[in-house]
Amino acid sequence: MTSGGQPLDAMRVAILAEPGSIVVESRPVPTPAGDEVLIEVRSVGVCGSDTHYYDHGRIGDHVVTGPLVLGHESAGVIVAVGSGVDTKRVGERVAIEPGVPCRSCRECLAGRYNLCPDMVFHATPPVDGTLAEYVTHPSVFTFALPDGISFDEGAMLEPLSVGIWACRRAGAAPGTRVLITGAGPVGQLAAQVAVAFGATEVVVADVNSHRLDVAASLGATEVVDVTSRSLSDVYAGRPGPDVILECSGHEGSTAAAIGVAAPAARVVLIGMGGDTVGLPLGVVQGRELWVTGVFRYANTWPTAIDLVATGRVTLAPLATGHFSLDETEAALTAARSDPRAIKSIIHPAGHPKGVNP
Amino acid sequence: MTSGGQPLDAMRVAILAEPGSIVVESRPVPTPAGDEVLIEVRSVGVCGSDTHYYDHGRIGDHVVTGPLVLGHESAGVIVAVGSGVDTKRVGERVAIEPGVPCRSCRECLAGRYNLCPDMVFHATPPVDGTLAEYVTHPSVFTFALPDGISFDEGAMLEPLSVGIWACRRAGAAPGTRVLITGAGPVGQLAAQVAVAFGATEVVVADVNSHRLDVAASLGATEVVDVTSRSLSDVYAGRPGPDVILECSGHEGSTAAAIGVAAPAARVVLIGMGGDTVGLPLGVVQGRELWVTGVFRYANTWPTAIDLVATGRVTLAPLATGHFSLDETEAALTAARSDPRAIKSIIHPAGHPKGVNP
Amino acid sequence: MTSGGQPLDAMRVAILAEPGSIVVESRPVPTPAGDEVLIEVRSVGVCGSDTHYYDHGRIGDHVVTGPLVLGHESAGVIVAVGSGVDTKRVGERVAIEPGVPCRSCRECLAGRYNLCPDMVFHATPPVDGTLAEYVTHPSVFTFALPDGISFDEGAMLEPLSVGIWACRRAGAAPGTRVLITGAGPVGQLAAQVAVAFGATEVVVADVNSHRLDVAASLGATEVVDVTSRSLSDVYAGRPGPDVILECSGHEGSTAAAIGVAAPAARVVLIGMGGDTVGLPLGVVQGRELWVTGVFRYANTWPTAIDLVATGRVTLAPLATGHFSLDETEAALTAARSDPRAIKSIIHPAGHPKGVNP
Amino acid sequence: MTSGGQPLDAMRVAILAEPGSIVVESRPVPTPAGDEVLIEVRSVGVCGSDTHYYDHGRIGDHVVTGPLVLGHESAGVIVAVGSGVDTKRVGERVAIEPGVPCRSCRECLAGRYNLCPDMVFHATPPVDGTLAEYVTHPSVFTFALPDGISFDEGAMLEPLSVGIWACRRAGAAPGTRVLITGAGPVGQLAAQVAVAFGATEVVVADVNSHRLDVAASLGATEVVDVTSRSLSDVYAGRPGPDVILECSGHEGSTAAAIGVAAPAARVVLIGMGGDTVGLPLGVVQGRELWVTGVFRYANTWPTAIDLVATGRVTLAPLATGHFSLDETEAALTAARSDPRAIKSIIHPAGHPKGVNP
Repeated sequence: MTSGGQPLDAMRVAILAEPGSIVVESRPVPTPAGDEVLIEVRSVGVCGSDTHYYDHGRIGDHVVTGPLVLGHESAGVIVAVGSGVDTKRVGERVAIEPGVPCRSCRECLAGRYNLCPDMVFHATPPVDGTLAEYVTHPSVFTFALPDGISFDEGAMLEPLSVGIWACRRAGAAPGTRVLITGAGPVGQLAAQVAVAFGATEVVVADVNSHRLDVAASLGATEVVDVTSRSLSDVYAGRPGPDVILECSGHEGSTAAAIGVAAPAARVVLIGMGGDTVGLPLGVVQGRELWVTGVFRYANTWPTAIDLVATGRVTLAPLATGHFSLDETEAALTAARSDPRAIKSIIHPAGHPKGVNP
Repeated sequence: MTSGGQPLDAMRVAILAEPGSIVVESRPVPTPAGDEVLIEVRSVGVCGSDTHYYDHGRIGDHVVTGPLVLGHESAGVIVAVGSGVDTKRVGERVAIEPGVPCRSCRECLAGRYNLCPDMVFHATPPVDGTLAEYVTHPSVFTFALPDGISFDEGAMLEPLSVGIWACRRAGAAPGTRVLITGAGPVGQLAAQVAVAFGATEVVVADVNSHRLDVAASLGATEVVDVTSRSLSDVYAGRPGPDVILECSGHEGSTAAAIGVAAPAARVVLIGMGGDTVGLPLGVVQGRELWVTGVFRYANTWPTAIDLVATGRVTLAPLATGHFSLDETEAALTAARSDPRAIKSIIHPAGHPKGVNP
Repeated sequence: MTSGGQPLDAMRVAILAEPGSIVVESRPVPTPAGDEVLIEVRSVGVCGSDTHYYDHGRIGDHVVTGPLVLGHESAGVIVAVGSGVDTKRVGERVAIEPGVPCRSCRECLAGRYNLCPDMVFHATPPVDGTLAEYVTHPSVFTFALPDGISFDEGAMLEPLSVGIWACRRAGAAPGTRVLITGAGPVGQLAAQVAVAFGATEVVVADVNSHRLDVAASLGATEVVDVTSRSLSDVYAGRPGPDVILECSGHEGSTAAAIGVAAPAARVVLIGMGGDTVGLPLGVVQGRELWVTGVFRYANTWPTAIDLVATGRVTLAPLATGHFSLDETEAALTAARSDPRAIKSIIHPAGHPKGVNP
Repeated sequence: MTSGGQPLDAMRVAILAEPGSIVVESRPVPTPAGDEVLIEVRSVGVCGSDTHYYDHGRIGDHVVTGPLVLGHESAGVIVAVGSGVDTKRVGERVAIEPGVPCRSCRECLAGRYNLCPDMVFHATPPVDGTLAEYVTHPSVFTFALPDGISFDEGAMLEPLSVGIWACRRAGAAPGTRVLITGAGPVGQLAAQVAVAFGATEVVVADVNSHRLDVAASLGATEVVDVTSRSLSDVYAGRPGPDVILECSGHEGSTAAAIGVAAPAARVVLIGMGGDTVGLPLGVVQGRELWVTGVFRYANTWPTAIDLVATGRVTLAPLATGHFSLDETEAALTAARSDPRAIKSIIHPAGHPKGVNP
């Protein structure tokens, strides 16, 4: 196996050795199985879950019990392919859908492969992630990037997919009023996706005025700083939202959003928070709300690529910091010190900032 | 206006004078408006909401501020019609859909008329109910009963409608496993409806062994006495329910039911309980559950009549007590002293026990 | 009843006296019923159905048996209101949803009011249309126009509604490829609506190169002149459309479109044509297509207004000719002599070209 | 590989050598791949497609170009398993879902695996079918039969699946009126499935009075002999069907059925017939019908097993003839001479009549 004429034997990998400690080590470059490709990883976005594993060593029942490679928002270049994959894919710029379902269980055969109980997902313990110079991945979950989409944008197709999936589940469309609570990376993307799905009223609420400015600049039709104005005040005397995308994980925010929901509204709980969220029973019943959550996504990458390629969604401004593999810890903690940070991008291999060579 | 040759001037009505006090009074017989019919009321089922108003004078924001006629599960005979209604309807045996929506608002025009903000509904203050010898009602919401359906059964089409509406919202069908928590009148009916919708696994859980026996005799495929066996125990090692119809209003029951839900399950909160129900966020997200409530029903009476007329649903055994208008207080409180009581029927006019003359 | 201080007694009306003959007559100004408003009609778009009635005196089973006022795409100003309507509506600039359903039948109560068998619809015999200085209409089907929407645009909300309804039925959204056959007024609007619903690939096919230019300028991502290139050629080697909006009414076009449909595609037959359209059975079965038609629309005006007000849909360029009431015949036949004509607008009252005074 | 202690080397297979000629030959017993099981085939139902290949050597684009083993409605006993399958499955009585999709394409990942372009399906050329003593099949598409379901019934789960799939697509449920045209095997099963899905009005129409008697005995609520009474006559003065399952493949029957459809009805074209079916455009548009077809099924076996196991659907009376492998030609042509024949069952191995040993 070679890349650019050089033999590939070893590669550098950023490992979560224990909570709070990332170590960069050398590991053998993996060999793609028959249906897999080998990808040189150019851009990896930092997700809140990466930081949470870094801080706490666990997310709910998912416990890190040994060294773990973090990272699951990824793009790169195919440098080798398995025996069953067309060799023409070598050289292809690609984005990685990080979960690989079994494709044989009830959920998979029903098209809900994101709910597959045997899902293998990058950086969900004990499965290693993509903060490595090279990773293998099934060809079918590795998507070609058009020329106009950079590696950074390719990596951000993953959080974009969450927004697409949420909007699909919620039925966002022309004629639906949308409220998004929480303007972090996922909220920013959900807002853009809601606009791309045709919603003409997309209100974004947060406590961070900078993030609200970003949301307003990227398509939100109205932003609400809830430190100075309540949602019940915002919606007094006008129709409530038909679609609520709760991206903060904050229980008070969830309750406030549900309180202003229109009859028959769909409420999608995206943000992760406490164990339990209090649901106002009388409201859910009296307005027949549908409340659901999202768990990753299914069948979203082609749509995500379309939306970015046609300019319906703008990802570049969300990449607010660039880091090398050696700077992984700094990338994981960038948002702590800088309220303007939205998405950190780590570049395990190749060109920084995801520039297309 | 006459009925059977006798002039109709005054009628007897059971009035909730104040919490805990029902008084039978005389009132003028109402005159049907152009699109209305006048109905001699033969059977009225007692609903938990009637008892709740009797006990507390309010349900949530609905406060009884003056004398109120209770009763909204009703059947009878048309004895007169308004100017715009076919006179052939006089003499027709009918069931009453108790809510009358505005039919012009967004919800009504979208087919969700149960969510109409201007709904006029029997026995929801300040609108009087049907515990009267005669009531007027729009012809279009008054449904002819086939010969095979008694007045008692006609009255019980109302709680049956709740079960139908819940099963429609939840998508009960062959291939869906159903769990029903709470075996009161609505739970009993929901279980039968789930079977009628084609579900082949319908588990009913309650703490009352008599009610579980009734459920088993009416079609539940499995009953669970949760005083001796937990739901997590019941579903250990086998697939969880795809449809959960929560009819108890009990928060612990709701949590236990959600805990065993299958991926992509629909959870319909039917029972009324506390202000807030705690939703396990990780479960709702990780399994992408859809959680909703029901608020009454829409477009259910024709289906309810079909199900009873064809024997798919059996209502008669649920009528466990019969009362005259003067015995209204006894009817309202029957379930307190008798654990075997399921549904009390009051007969404001005509033949007791709803017998078809 | 007055308007602008002048008593309103008589008005001018354009009447289809017999096929091929429009006569302008004087009629009494109608009086609004309790739930109605009186509208001074400023702009009326000419629909193919108007021209068809003018030419043939019938459309299918709908036969003109007496003098008939044509016109059903309408906007104007409220000049008086019935007793049950808020007097603040006087002076309001409005668009008219031309069909008034019974709101009591099965279809209406299910939210499919467009399928109401007792629908009263402007210019469907024997109901008069809006080519009159004044018309009455139920307040609830008369929608306020924001300042930014002209009367001409207000009139064109009607054909826009057809596009919205078709896209809703077809499930157009990001990730769906759309093919539109026929680039007449409805096809032009359907293409814009498909883009507004988020479709990133919207192909428009026609035989008229000018209309294709218009479609390309208004958002179609690709246009096909089928006089020089077949659809099977266009889609060779690439995925077929998931949504087909057939707006030509031409059987060959329908067959060609269905031939390239993707698996599970939705095909909406909008164009009116011959009695029967031949459906390729093996294709419909082998790809499990869904084939349907549209009959007007339901609950579309608020969405139509939103799309125009926010610039997602552009209507102004489609108004290619302006006519007074006396020029009605010219308006009805404008498209015959001018291949560049798309939509003729007649101005029964007030300012020509629908200018907002 | 052994079965019951005996070495398995060769097996008998019925081969379509050329149109009109079945030859029984000896072939090596296949070896299951890692994810496969080896099944001793006990019952194979004869489908119209088998007979069509026997008569014509092709169905549409599917052409038999070499020797082909027919048969795809199959049940048997697992006698060996591949390396990746639990050995406990040996001895299991099973039914075979005959199509194996790629599970990686757009259709498969969306849950529409029946539309997979790379489907491998028993007895669709060039893939051999199950008229053999032994066949291999992926474990995941091989379903355990409960004790109460015989091999014959297990084989008939395949046509039953077509009925389930059609009813799912059509939304059959309590409150929907169902019309089934054509009372052959699939029509018989579709009628039973419609009842099992909760439909209370299931009308079956055919020209064969014996088949109508069978339908009536198995749950149809009304049967119509269209040689003596037209569908328009049957539905005159009463609501038309909301669900039409067209199982005859006869164009006149399709047209007659569509002519009586209720507004918003779903029409599922199941029967195979001519190249083109004429669709009455005005009816499809004016009533906004949804017309679709079925291509096999997806995710139906568990539901089929549930329906048979619980007695909701009765399969045994439909098995009207039993044949050995040597009698394959007689089985394929049984329906020609006997109007009472519905489903022929061939028993390649083991006990005739599918009796459980």
